Amino acid sequence: MMAPVIVLVRPQLAENIGMAARAMLNCGLTELRLVRPDEAPDHPRALAAATHADGVLRSARVFDTVEAAVGDLHHVFATCPRHRDMVKEVITPRAAAADLRAMVDNGERPAILFGPERTGLESDEISLADVQVSIPLNPDFNSLNLAQAVLVMGYEWWQARAEAPDRVLVTNKAVPATKGELAGFFRRLEAALDECGFLRDERMRPTMILNIRAMFQRAGLMSHEINTLQGIVTGLTERPHASSIPGSRPGKRSSD
Amino acid sequence: MMAPVIVLVRPQLAENIGMAARAMLNCGLTELRLVRPDEAPDHPRALAAATHADGVLRSARVFDTVEAAVGDLHHVFATCPRHRDMVKEVITPRAAAADLRAMVDNGERPAILFGPERTGLESDEISLADVQVSIPLNPDFNSLNLAQAVLVMGYEWWQARAEAPDRVLVTNKAVPATKGELAGFFRRLEAALDECGFLRDERMRPTMILNIRAMFQRAGLMSHEINTLQGIVTGLTERPHASSIPGSRPGKRSSD
Repeated sequence: MMAPVIVLVRPQLAENIGMAARAMLNCGLTELRLVRPDEAPDHPRALAAATHADGVLRSARVFDTVEAAVGDLHHVFATCPRHRDMVKEVITPRAAAADLRAMVDNGERPAILFGPERTGLESDEISLADVQVSIPLNPDFNSLNLAQAVLVMGYEWWQARAEAPDRVLVTNKAVPATKGELAGFFRRLEAALDECGFLRDERMRPTMILNIRAMFQRAGLMSHEINTLQGIVTGLTERPHASSIPGSRPGKRSSD
Repeated sequence: MMAPVIVLVRPQLAENIGMAARAMLNCGLTELRLVRPDEAPDHPRALAAATHADGVLRSARVFDTVEAAVGDLHHVFATCPRHRDMVKEVITPRAAAADLRAMVDNGERPAILFGPERTGLESDEISLADVQVSIPLNPDFNSLNLAQAVLVMGYEWWQARAEAPDRVLVTNKAVPATKGELAGFFRRLEAALDECGFLRDERMRPTMILNIRAMFQRAGLMSHEINTLQGIVTGLTERPHASSIPGSRPGKRSSD
């Protein structure tokens, strides 16, 4: 699978190179290039910070210039927090990710450039990019750690893949209750509440029943959960296994 | 400005606490809570890793339990990579951010829970959440550094700032229950279920409790509904207004 190339320009700390590699692999990115790094990509502190993404570091390539690092690629996106005094398109990571997907789907190879921790990319390096990417963040504190910036770009790249659903109810094969099962539970509960006197106020009774039903409706109950609830009502009302010691409380039960 | 509370549960490394604080401030989040951290939030290594976000660390509060940490809040989102065997809604960070915005705009206070670096949240901690958030990433390598996970949630929170909510829960001015109120109901219900013998199977008891809590968590209960449920448990167990006519069903119970 083709994916964008991550280019770290003059990174200063081995830990950041390693954490960037880990963030890359989290997002399905595996091709790392470095321009004049202060520490080698296979530095022990880089390998330690990468945890299981050391393969990304070991296959990383080192270049002398940004121009050389992106020479075989088709598009360059430069990440930078500040707008420089150049006329250049500035887009968000989300918009960039959509462009990156389209390029890769088209068989083209894009790169994403990240500058040094302290200073960011220089103007002549940014000038090699087709577009600048600026991450919208708290304007009073928008300096991201290098690996964090890599993660945001990679995260958006991953989200831009074939759309996955945003919201899933994990049921582990549980079957939703039918409306008949739910109605059966309501009958059982309301009979018990009538009997114990909870619904004795005739005027309030209809509203109370509606409100009780609304709570359980909202929970989106599964079939087996209806059984649990039925068991709870039976347990609380009939106390078939209640402790035989009068007044005993949970925790003090010595036998059953 | 109101914003979600970040809750780090049993974090192990001071550096990660510090980097999480930095990521928070990058995204306009300032309220940090810690549950039994291995190292204090103002540990020198945490402060160093936070760079200029040390104010977030110095105002962080430490709690003994997740329950205590979220007691005054209305909604809990639990981040976890794996699906557990509970019926619970799982959503993406993007969908979560839209929900978080709608809640905050509505004056409600949500929390986002993050588990320990090595193990993640435990089942009983996840059971305190309304919804699980799972970050879609490379399925072959989806273990995110703690601060990276905080950044993804914060990043999506920031991106969602301008957007109008696409989902509204009509509550007719009802106030969502705080997690403390919900916990109080769970304590009451579980004590009653212990006493009547419903939870007598010691081996199954933890799973049964998790499943019962999951049902009520999912319902998104309002404060007044907690009162109703408390009243139902009292009614079913104590029968203070039970019909005085013996044998009036569903009881073969002649005595209590």
